[in-house]
Amino acid sequence: MIHEMASILVKPGMGGQFEQGFFEALPLFKQAKGCHGASLERSVEDPLRYLVIVGWETLEDHVVGFRNSEDYGRWRDLVGAFFAAPPFVDHTKVVIDDRVTEEFQ
Amino acid sequence: MIHEMASILVKPGMGGQFEQGFFEALPLFKQAKGCHGASLERSVEDPLRYLVIVGWETLEDHVVGFRNSEDYGRWRDLVGAFFAAPPFVDHTKVVIDDRVTEEFQ
Repeated sequence: MIHEMASILVKPGMGGQFEQGFFEALPLFKQAKGCHGASLERSVEDPLRYLVIVGWETLEDHVVGFRNSEDYGRWRDLVGAFFAAPPFVDHTKVVIDDRVTEEFQ
Repeated sequence: MIHEMASILVKPGMGGQFEQGFFEALPLFKQAKGCHGASLERSVEDPLRYLVIVGWETLEDHVVGFRNSEDYGRWRDLVGAFFAAPPFVDHTKVVIDDRVTEEFQ
């Protein structure tokens, strides 16, 4: 299990529309092979900067499976127009987790 | 509740020592006022890049309370020597969470 970490800068004034598009795209992630769901976080320092976190069973489930699927096109249709720049995408693996997860829900 | 997101690049060959230092620092976060625990993730693309995620009740609990505490000095003593560059720190707030959290534990 890995995390896709996509840092997205949206165009000024487009935050609300981006969030709505993300919300509408949730079923696309839900039905993607190997996907453990998606979450959206917004920067406190710069309200135009967002972090999309998606759980994937494997790296390939994201970069091969999802990115070559029709749903990837639908995802971009829902949110791509609000991007101010191409997203920066990284993938991470949890090494140590000592967070109080129940507080995050 | 907010997330501190600290992106840390470590010096080549120092990943193991950094992870050990992070593990030893967990009690410092555990006892910090307003802290909801810390986790450590490692980049798949670049194994020298780490993401430290810390839950804080408020931004002030981190940038005023923790950073001015003696435990902040202890944290830096445990991990600072392994940093290849000053960490990039951002803070985020969850907007939408549709992740299957039980899979993350």
